Amino acid sequence: MNTIALLTDFGSRDNFVGTVKGVILNNNPRAILIDISHNIFSYDIKGAAFILLSCFSYFPKRTVFLAAVDPGVGSKQKAIAIKTRNYYFVGPDNGILSLAAGRDGVEKIVNLKNKKYFLKEVSSTFRARDIFAPCAAYLSMGLSIDKLGGNLTKIEKTDFGFSKITKNEIQAEIIYADKFGNLFTNITCRQFASFYKQNKNFSAVLNKKIIDKIYSFYNEAKSNEPFFIEGSSQFLEIALKNKSAKDFFSVKKMNQKLVIKNK
Amino acid sequence: MNTIALLTDFGSRDNFVGTVKGVILNNNPRAILIDISHNIFSYDIKGAAFILLSCFSYFPKRTVFLAAVDPGVGSKQKAIAIKTRNYYFVGPDNGILSLAAGRDGVEKIVNLKNKKYFLKEVSSTFRARDIFAPCAAYLSMGLSIDKLGGNLTKIEKTDFGFSKITKNEIQAEIIYADKFGNLFTNITCRQFASFYKQNKNFSAVLNKKIIDKIYSFYNEAKSNEPFFIEGSSQFLEIALKNKSAKDFFSVKKMNQKLVIKNK
Amino acid sequence: MNTIALLTDFGSRDNFVGTVKGVILNNNPRAILIDISHNIFSYDIKGAAFILLSCFSYFPKRTVFLAAVDPGVGSKQKAIAIKTRNYYFVGPDNGILSLAAGRDGVEKIVNLKNKKYFLKEVSSTFRARDIFAPCAAYLSMGLSIDKLGGNLTKIEKTDFGFSKITKNEIQAEIIYADKFGNLFTNITCRQFASFYKQNKNFSAVLNKKIIDKIYSFYNEAKSNEPFFIEGSSQFLEIALKNKSAKDFFSVKKMNQKLVIKNK
Repeated sequence: MNTIALLTDFGSRDNFVGTVKGVILNNNPRAILIDISHNIFSYDIKGAAFILLSCFSYFPKRTVFLAAVDPGVGSKQKAIAIKTRNYYFVGPDNGILSLAAGRDGVEKIVNLKNKKYFLKEVSSTFRARDIFAPCAAYLSMGLSIDKLGGNLTKIEKTDFGFSKITKNEIQAEIIYADKFGNLFTNITCRQFASFYKQNKNFSAVLNKKIIDKIYSFYNEAKSNEPFFIEGSSQFLEIALKNKSAKDFFSVKKMNQKLVIKNK
Repeated sequence: MNTIALLTDFGSRDNFVGTVKGVILNNNPRAILIDISHNIFSYDIKGAAFILLSCFSYFPKRTVFLAAVDPGVGSKQKAIAIKTRNYYFVGPDNGILSLAAGRDGVEKIVNLKNKKYFLKEVSSTFRARDIFAPCAAYLSMGLSIDKLGGNLTKIEKTDFGFSKITKNEIQAEIIYADKFGNLFTNITCRQFASFYKQNKNFSAVLNKKIIDKIYSFYNEAKSNEPFFIEGSSQFLEIALKNKSAKDFFSVKKMNQKLVIKNK
Repeated sequence: MNTIALLTDFGSRDNFVGTVKGVILNNNPRAILIDISHNIFSYDIKGAAFILLSCFSYFPKRTVFLAAVDPGVGSKQKAIAIKTRNYYFVGPDNGILSLAAGRDGVEKIVNLKNKKYFLKEVSSTFRARDIFAPCAAYLSMGLSIDKLGGNLTKIEKTDFGFSKITKNEIQAEIIYADKFGNLFTNITCRQFASFYKQNKNFSAVLNKKIIDKIYSFYNEAKSNEPFFIEGSSQFLEIALKNKSAKDFFSVKKMNQKLVIKNK
């Protein structure tokens, strides 16, 4: 139970990630440190929440996830740790942990307040180093989460924008674009599958361009032909074969509307 | 024999790399995970094959290399594992493994077919997670490669473009540009050394610009003076001192022609 | 004492980092490899020295730091290892190690000369692989630093540009910009705190724009209001709330002048 998985917007150029890892190893020399990503867009809490949701369940049980996209550092926003059915999550109370923790089943939330488990000096700008890292290290060594602070009954939530599914129409939003330009919607593959059964002849519109195909793998499509795909996440994706759907549909920011109707 | 080295085009922003690592650790908690690179250009199989060739032999014996640049995922393209004299290689049968495995000496190739060693649910878009990761984990734990599937006698190959070496002329191609803008040719240092013995007075042309110097280290050169160098790979490189040869020669894509002649 | 922390400008696309890690593991299979950063700007020795200074003290005692921004590779520039009060540092003698090692307290410097601890073949372009990596691996296994080469009494230093502090004026320079665009000055928080006591009504000028606020955390500021902040490093920082100070002040290169006066 020594794995600590890290997810931040700290980037890969500065000392931030190295510093956090140093603090963890200084507290738990046997910690196995795994980088999920440090290249979340700066301050993009929703993106980080989505990434964490997408990967947490593949990790060994008892993995501690340290997630830090933390523009509220220094303010009154709480630092929290969550024990879920299979995992631990540590980070700011800004919604970043809410989707993954909720999916796994929250068992206990604590307000990180016990300075005994912090670095000696706590800055007002880098609590990933001063609070999250040592607390995550202690959790990975088996410390009871109750030692870290008092109980909380609720945390901030992240939502993924508007969606509405009726018999013949889906209204959804684009919530994430990955490195390949694949676009993730906020409706699940399961939801779409159920809609599709009754609407084989669908037509979707995103930024005035049409999608009316669904494929099960990328190479099934023709060149320059956008399609839906039940991607590796649980969410319905929009893709092109060896091309960026993000560029094809000129998606410049998230939460753009997608409407899917029967033709 | 627990080292698993990862090479992908998954980038460093999304959940893909973290997910693959989670799956590996879930199967082999003692795996030592080493990132070679996750920033291979999207779909660049040749580039990945070259990177793998350049570094594999420095790793401990019995290292398992998981290489995934995998635009053919979901199609009929095979998933394979290769046992070579000193290592294991796991990835798609698209040429990405062929150069490194060939260099080390192929002993056995298997078609990854035994679902017992896959994730329970196998998607059609992410076999690095569903097939490569668990199979690599099992190999790292000492499972016999024969358990993973039936034998194959041949695999897809990657080649590095045209080259021709005569007594007084070399025709070659640029096959890779590294982060510093150093350009890698597809002729080996050894081939060039042998040519150079008889052609001390050489002159090479790349994109209408001339190279007629060879140096043994970067600081030997004057500013803005391009030169050949026997770089750290086995391939002849073109470089400038503290500058990008890629920019200097306006190399926008790979496989551009280089001609070296006696003056 | 098996932790080896890596800091380079090798980037995250090529084989360089993977190769160095392979060599280390080949010599010390139990080494715990931690990436500080591989995205130092190419050849930016000062930036790397600053990053190393900012994070080294958070690592476990006896950590070996391998720092390689090495444009002088192949020339007469020495390869060195330093034993400090708590750590080991390995890298080129170009100033990259000087700030961190000096801060921790230098106990011994050696000129890496003992080929017994190098790779068998030493290239003239990649001593991070051929010299630094195996020497760092041996140090991490407890080899006495004396075995690696003869003693040196001094090393190249890196400095951080001009600064001058008088009763009512500070002249300083910008020495680093992080991923978020926060600007780091070359005066310490302690120095500024002492100046501020007597100059509560300060006004600073950077590129013709004014800073006259100091906050203790980012969210304390209004939008588009630049401010000083005692950041997580020991150096005074210039920041904006959820925005890049680097862009706001049009800082295109380092060492730009900052003047702070009593109003």
